[in-house]
Amino acid sequence: MKCVSCKEDYGSSDAGTCRECYEEASETEEELKREIEDLKAKVNFLRFWSPSQHLHQQQRTTPFFSDIVLVASHDESGKSTPYPVPVPANRALLASRSPVFRAMLENEMEESLSGTIKISDVSYEALRAFVTYLYTADACLDDLMACDLLVLAEKYQVNHLKTYCEKFLISKLNWENSLPNYGFAHQHNAKKLLDAALSLIMENMDKLSNREEYKELVDKDPRLVVEIYEAYLSKQVNTAVQKDPVAKA
Amino acid sequence: MKCVSCKEDYGSSDAGTCRECYEEASETEEELKREIEDLKAKVNFLRFWSPSQHLHQQQRTTPFFSDIVLVASHDESGKSTPYPVPVPANRALLASRSPVFRAMLENEMEESLSGTIKISDVSYEALRAFVTYLYTADACLDDLMACDLLVLAEKYQVNHLKTYCEKFLISKLNWENSLPNYGFAHQHNAKKLLDAALSLIMENMDKLSNREEYKELVDKDPRLVVEIYEAYLSKQVNTAVQKDPVAKA
Repeated sequence: MKCVSCKEDYGSSDAGTCRECYEEASETEEELKREIEDLKAKVNFLRFWSPSQHLHQQQRTTPFFSDIVLVASHDESGKSTPYPVPVPANRALLASRSPVFRAMLENEMEESLSGTIKISDVSYEALRAFVTYLYTADACLDDLMACDLLVLAEKYQVNHLKTYCEKFLISKLNWENSLPNYGFAHQHNAKKLLDAALSLIMENMDKLSNREEYKELVDKDPRLVVEIYEAYLSKQVNTAVQKDPVAKA
Repeated sequence: MKCVSCKEDYGSSDAGTCRECYEEASETEEELKREIEDLKAKVNFLRFWSPSQHLHQQQRTTPFFSDIVLVASHDESGKSTPYPVPVPANRALLASRSPVFRAMLENEMEESLSGTIKISDVSYEALRAFVTYLYTADACLDDLMACDLLVLAEKYQVNHLKTYCEKFLISKLNWENSLPNYGFAHQHNAKKLLDAALSLIMENMDKLSNREEYKELVDKDPRLVVEIYEAYLSKQVNTAVQKDPVAKA
C-alpha cells in the first residue's frame, strides 16, 4: 500500500490509520492552524505599544501617553543608583497587568502621588524589559534576563511572565546548572522550575556531594539540601511500593 | 488491518497513512494544541479590563483608571440624544487600538481638551460594546450588533474588529439577506463580506429581479446593481474561456 501522506509503500505491519481517519485528522490540523492564526491576530490587536519602543520608533521627545515612571533605585548589587534613568509607563496599563501595581496606584500611596515607582535590586535593562513585557507580552531572554524578570514577576504578581521565564529556564536546565537553579527556584517560589531541577538532581545523586555548588548550598542553606534528601528517599519508597505492592502491604 | 485511530478493521483500498506518518501527525496535533493554550494565556494576559465591566464587578463608584468618556451624541436614527450616558475609557487604550483616536488624542483636538468624545449615529449599547471590544477583543454579536460594530470599526480603523464582524456576517449569509448585506458591505468598504454576498447573488441570478430588495436597490443605488451584472458577465466570460480556451484564442 502507498501512504497517502509520505507517498512511500508500506506493508500491513506498518499500517497506521484508515483513509477516513486520515482525512479527519487533516481537517482537524487545518482547523487548529486557523485557530492559531486567529489567536495570533488577537494577540497583535491586544498588544500595547511600549512607551519606550514608541519613543524609539517615532523619534518623539515625549513618550506615548505616559503618566508615571519607574526607576531602578538600587542595582542588582544593592548599590543605590545616583541618577537612575526613568522608564515611562501608563498607570492603567500597570494596574491592569499586576495586582501589586493596582493596589499601589488605586490607593493614593506615595508612588501614585509622586508619579514615580522605585524598584530596588534591578538593572535598568531588566526594568525596561519588564515594562516592555507588561505592554507587549514579549521579551528577549537569556539566562540572566530570565532570572531578573522572574524575580520581578514574582514580586509584582505577573503570573504570565513568571510562567514564561520558568519555561525558558527549564528548557536550559542541565546537570551543571541544576543546583543553582534549584536554590533560585526555592528562593522565588518557582514551583515548576523547582520540580524540574529536583528531578534532574535526583537522577544524579551519586555525583551530587562532589559538586562545588553542593558544598556551598550546605553552608548557605542546609535546609534545601535536606529537602533534596527527603524527596529522594520518598521517591525510593514509592518506587519500592510500586514494584512490590504485596510485600509492602 | 485495524486502524490505530478508530480501531475499526479496513481493507487496503481504504488505507490511509503508514504508522510513522500517523505518529508524526499526532505529535503535530499535540504541538498545535499546546501552541493554542499558550496563545490563549497570552490573550488573557493582554486583555484590559473594560472600565464598565470593572464598574459592574467591583461595585465601584468611579470607573477604573478612566480619563476620558465617549458619548453617543445621536442615536442610529440620527436623533440627538438629550441626556447621553457616558461610556468611560482610557486615553492610552483608545490610542493604542485606533489610529483615529490616536490622532484625536495626541493632537490636542477638542475631544482631547474636553475629555469627551462624541460619537454620532450609534446606540448606547453599540458604543459600550465597541469600547468593551477595544479593551478585551471580545463581543457578543447578533446581526444588528455586528453591523453597528462594523460601522464603528470602519470609522475608527479598528481592523481586527472589522474582520471579526465581517466573519460573523459572512457566517450568517443566505439568499434572503444577501442583497441587503451586499449594499451594506459596499457602503462600509467591507471587501470580504461584499465578495461573499456577491458570490451568493450570482448563484441565484434567475431569481434576482423578482426580489423586493432588488427593486429597492435599483431605485436607491442603481450603480450597485450594475456592478452585480458586470461581475456576473465577467464570470461567465471567464468560465467560457476555461471551458474552451482554443475557441477563444
